[in-house]
Amino acid sequence: MREIEELREVLERRIQSIEFKRPPADLYDPISYTLQSNGKRIRPVLFLLACQMFSEKIDDAIDPAIGFEIFHNFTLLHDDIMDNASVRRGMPTVHEKWNVNTAILSGDAMMVEAYKFVSHTPGKYLGEVLALFSETASGVCEGQMFDMLFEKQETVSEAEYLEMIKLKTSVLLAASLKAGAIIGGANNKNAEKLYLFGLHLGLAFQLKDDWLDVFGDPAVFGKKPGGDIVENKKTFLLIKALEKAQGADKMELEFWLKQKEFDRETKVVAVTNLYRKLEVDKLTDRKAEEHFNEAFKQLKEIDIEEYKKRPLNEMGKILLERIK
Amino acid sequence: MREIEELREVLERRIQSIEFKRPPADLYDPISYTLQSNGKRIRPVLFLLACQMFSEKIDDAIDPAIGFEIFHNFTLLHDDIMDNASVRRGMPTVHEKWNVNTAILSGDAMMVEAYKFVSHTPGKYLGEVLALFSETASGVCEGQMFDMLFEKQETVSEAEYLEMIKLKTSVLLAASLKAGAIIGGANNKNAEKLYLFGLHLGLAFQLKDDWLDVFGDPAVFGKKPGGDIVENKKTFLLIKALEKAQGADKMELEFWLKQKEFDRETKVVAVTNLYRKLEVDKLTDRKAEEHFNEAFKQLKEIDIEEYKKRPLNEMGKILLERIK
Repeated sequence: MREIEELREVLERRIQSIEFKRPPADLYDPISYTLQSNGKRIRPVLFLLACQMFSEKIDDAIDPAIGFEIFHNFTLLHDDIMDNASVRRGMPTVHEKWNVNTAILSGDAMMVEAYKFVSHTPGKYLGEVLALFSETASGVCEGQMFDMLFEKQETVSEAEYLEMIKLKTSVLLAASLKAGAIIGGANNKNAEKLYLFGLHLGLAFQLKDDWLDVFGDPAVFGKKPGGDIVENKKTFLLIKALEKAQGADKMELEFWLKQKEFDRETKVVAVTNLYRKLEVDKLTDRKAEEHFNEAFKQLKEIDIEEYKKRPLNEMGKILLERIK
Repeated sequence: MREIEELREVLERRIQSIEFKRPPADLYDPISYTLQSNGKRIRPVLFLLACQMFSEKIDDAIDPAIGFEIFHNFTLLHDDIMDNASVRRGMPTVHEKWNVNTAILSGDAMMVEAYKFVSHTPGKYLGEVLALFSETASGVCEGQMFDMLFEKQETVSEAEYLEMIKLKTSVLLAASLKAGAIIGGANNKNAEKLYLFGLHLGLAFQLKDDWLDVFGDPAVFGKKPGGDIVENKKTFLLIKALEKAQGADKMELEFWLKQKEFDRETKVVAVTNLYRKLEVDKLTDRKAEEHFNEAFKQLKEIDIEEYKKRPLNEMGKILLERIK
């Protein structure tokens, strides 16, 4: 969609124009490096589209939108240290390219930069947007902590898992939309509906992501399926499978979870077949669909001319396109 | 001074009342642990004293003042990871008591809490205080990065060193005072003078801290002198000594810097004697005194009734008392 592409270009130009003119380079270079890597800019695009729904002028929203994007990239930088990840978007992570201390400290400075950009919100809306941003930032930290705790936890319930992905992924998408709406002058009710649109979109997105990792077409998604299975990652599929499996199925699933050495392919095929047998593939798909529908229901209920909803409708579909 | 003690109690009560009611405990317990440890609350006391200089009502300043204190404690939490420190104020550091990932993530969440408290600044002053706070936070990160870089650097100049301690220590003291003054309704000129008061106070404090580590009375300060000498820490004393030493003195100093194994006492005595011989003790003392005098000159120039300056005058002296 041309409109979305244009916004992305506006954002990209502004992001590329960010210069840190002060030393030390060791503090600021990793921030530029992280920001310039080729992200999809989903959050600030949603931010601007939400603003545009209520206002013709979106200039005031650009810097705050970029603040949300900087925050998102900051979380990736610090998460990569915690997850010991060496590659991000095809490039070495900051703690690999520099070192862990530099990654910690540059991350900290990056969060400050995020706040600086969010602080460019017009005075009239500053208090409200700032409170929303901080509350969301706390939520994202909570989500990452739950994610780390779940790794060591014996069992994770469906509710716990959904709460975790809500915090880790959805609240920032939701808040980007709501903040954009606030700066665009939306009333509370409409801003809240956009928040829920983002929240459910995020949940659908993450659930489908779990599904894709097992059932996605490798020709389309460019990665070998089953990565999560190999690592025993507690995805929605595994959580439901552990809930549903009985007798021999349960024994087989637990066998694969406990196995320290195994042939990758054999394990992936076996667990995938179990997922199919237990119908957790359909279940995950249905759950994603539910949230997808709920998202668009919220969008529909927004009290504004229908044609103004078109770009966000489109963007929502683009985001979930790969899952259709 | 009773007035200062009373403010400290007000602050302490408010800090102790901060409750994190949401899970996960692993994210929020380390924040409570860090905040409840027995800090001197210097920054928020300065904040409130500065506010009180211009306004009888200081209620509006309490939360923002605590925001600055939370930020300070956050920097200690993350610095302790980077410096691999296991003890802080007589207690195990967060990464020791929990683990490094928890310390990184709780620190992040703690910075968000700092911003939440600063965001409680009355709307009228919010934009200005927030910009000052973020700018200061960037400076503190820069200071910590310079400090880490200096460890690996062959030589550090006097100017580089002063810039580093200004960023790492002074700007947050200065900004606490300025933000308090802003919320108290001070004009720009007076607020800026308080900033400079804090900046020079911080420099005097840090220079005297370097001096005390070598020449302080162990009976008074409760720690063995010479810790910095043992670690070859690039303090003002060492930097000036390296600048001034010639011939045999230079050789002796470099001998001790290169020595991998040595008797602690012998090295401390030898380097201390060199410092005396090169008169870098007096030089450091004089430099601290210069900044001390400059600080009080700035305070004097503030355009307000003299009696209103008394509490800050007192607080400044208390801070530097240990150096007199």
